[in-house]
Amino acid sequence: MGNDNAKKHWIGFDLGGTKMYGVLFDHKFNVVASDRKKTKGELGAGSSIERMAEIITKVLEESKLDRSDLGAIGMGCPGPLDLNKGVVLEAPNLGWRNVELREIFGKKFKCPVAIANDVDAGTYGEYRFGAGQKARCVLGVFPGTGIGGGCVYEGKLLRGRTGSCMEIGHVQVQSNGRLCGCGRRGCLETVASRLAIASECATAAFRGEAPILLKLAGTDLANIRSGTLAEAIQKGDKVVEKIVRNAAKQIGTAIGSVVNLLAPDVVVLGGGLVEAMKSLFLEEVREAFAKRAMASYVKSTEIVTAKLDDNATALGAAALAAEAANEA
Amino acid sequence: MGNDNAKKHWIGFDLGGTKMYGVLFDHKFNVVASDRKKTKGELGAGSSIERMAEIITKVLEESKLDRSDLGAIGMGCPGPLDLNKGVVLEAPNLGWRNVELREIFGKKFKCPVAIANDVDAGTYGEYRFGAGQKARCVLGVFPGTGIGGGCVYEGKLLRGRTGSCMEIGHVQVQSNGRLCGCGRRGCLETVASRLAIASECATAAFRGEAPILLKLAGTDLANIRSGTLAEAIQKGDKVVEKIVRNAAKQIGTAIGSVVNLLAPDVVVLGGGLVEAMKSLFLEEVREAFAKRAMASYVKSTEIVTAKLDDNATALGAAALAAEAANEA
Repeated sequence: MGNDNAKKHWIGFDLGGTKMYGVLFDHKFNVVASDRKKTKGELGAGSSIERMAEIITKVLEESKLDRSDLGAIGMGCPGPLDLNKGVVLEAPNLGWRNVELREIFGKKFKCPVAIANDVDAGTYGEYRFGAGQKARCVLGVFPGTGIGGGCVYEGKLLRGRTGSCMEIGHVQVQSNGRLCGCGRRGCLETVASRLAIASECATAAFRGEAPILLKLAGTDLANIRSGTLAEAIQKGDKVVEKIVRNAAKQIGTAIGSVVNLLAPDVVVLGGGLVEAMKSLFLEEVREAFAKRAMASYVKSTEIVTAKLDDNATALGAAALAAEAANEA
Repeated sequence: MGNDNAKKHWIGFDLGGTKMYGVLFDHKFNVVASDRKKTKGELGAGSSIERMAEIITKVLEESKLDRSDLGAIGMGCPGPLDLNKGVVLEAPNLGWRNVELREIFGKKFKCPVAIANDVDAGTYGEYRFGAGQKARCVLGVFPGTGIGGGCVYEGKLLRGRTGSCMEIGHVQVQSNGRLCGCGRRGCLETVASRLAIASECATAAFRGEAPILLKLAGTDLANIRSGTLAEAIQKGDKVVEKIVRNAAKQIGTAIGSVVNLLAPDVVVLGGGLVEAMKSLFLEEVREAFAKRAMASYVKSTEIVTAKLDDNATALGAAALAAEAANEA
């Protein structure tokens, strides 16, 4: 099927906890059309799926693409997935359980559907089109509400038997640390995710040590977004800066340990926190990484920020779907 | 060349810090002949290489093998290697620097020579012939004087650009721990290698808390081998048992973090410490692992001890050399 697919178009979908974003790409992965909507997980899976279909229908109509030229749809999704079956097993942020995306959208749009973990898709996007192009081994680290990881090794994503792997947010960094969402204690996420930082900053704001943040967002973690943290730092909240820098350092230290295992050529930093404070993160991560990784790996590993920003997951998901279709 | 190699014989070599061991295998990887000698690194690289050649010559003569039936030699070696060039870059335990094994032995025995990291070769051996057979992803963890790791993913060893990777001994487990041989602090090796355990036990022996160990080995770390520790525990040194169990627990915790990254199907525990105290290590590692890895990985990952013992590295090195020759 390889040759028939040479001129096909591909849809990449980024299904997030707050918004969903669909993009139609041409055969060279240029954007032809895109659309986004709020996810509204609280309305149930059926409602989200309906709006996903509306996005896909809209980009197809807008582009006036002949349906037979649609090669496949790739979807980057949160939560544990069954990649072989194309099922989202559980996505607490969406309120989903056992949603059979491949089945549903394959029937609806009469084309192959591939799903991928959202961070895996983002890492693959950066490998194919962004900051990790042509590298033998790329480690993607995406600190946001949680901290996700992905690894493209010799052109392929490393994965588990049925799902994704590379859960760098659940590497232990403290032996008796805070309770993590995974049920363990001291995971990287408990000290360096957006949620962990927000909880530390909210405490400081409550104590009167972060007056700007207090004015911007109060002490409700839900209001302390990555952009809010960046703004508070920029306007002079020294304690917020200290907290964020310390989190970035811990991410750098954890990356050091992971690099000792995988020896990647490039580490790509992306995600909400990094996008909001690129130079701060790059500086602290590089410094802490250089103190932790073995000397020869410090030399052979480059640490960079992501290039594709919002498009990484959609691009990666589309490229993965295209590859699967070409291999079929 | 694939078909011509179907009846070839292969030599696997395990080059250790204290002893060297060469084995001639038939085309089904049954042992035909083997020989071992002391490494005697203190006599210089030239002397070690000479004795390696004597071993190879001896197993070839003993088997009366026609030289044209020797397919390749595989060598499992310590220290950072250049796998592409077949060079041992640095092996402090051997006193070697830039020893061009492929060049030297390729000329001498007129056949292809492949080198591999010793733990990688051991892990590959267990994957091909031992406790990890047919697994999609095998993580090998070998606690001995240091703590080495290896990972066979979909039939291939994960590796760095020019050398080996999977340095699980240098994953951080304490944020301000003891100084490691790699120059960092708090690596797994500083709390759970044979050397770390020996240093903790020697301290206890000095304080009079490990009377049996004191009698068996004194307080010199060089004399406290894995077998000595096992003997002291068996004869009733409760403090030694406590120290070894704690080390095994820390290995289990570190494995938990690594499993969160790689999601292997099987973790194979080998190496001197494990061989000397199999059930103790299996018990403690399994328990600590189950407390650290994410719940779904605890279910999907089996932890077992190595099956091939002393033969793992030679078998794996021979099999890797055979594969490289078949691909050439």
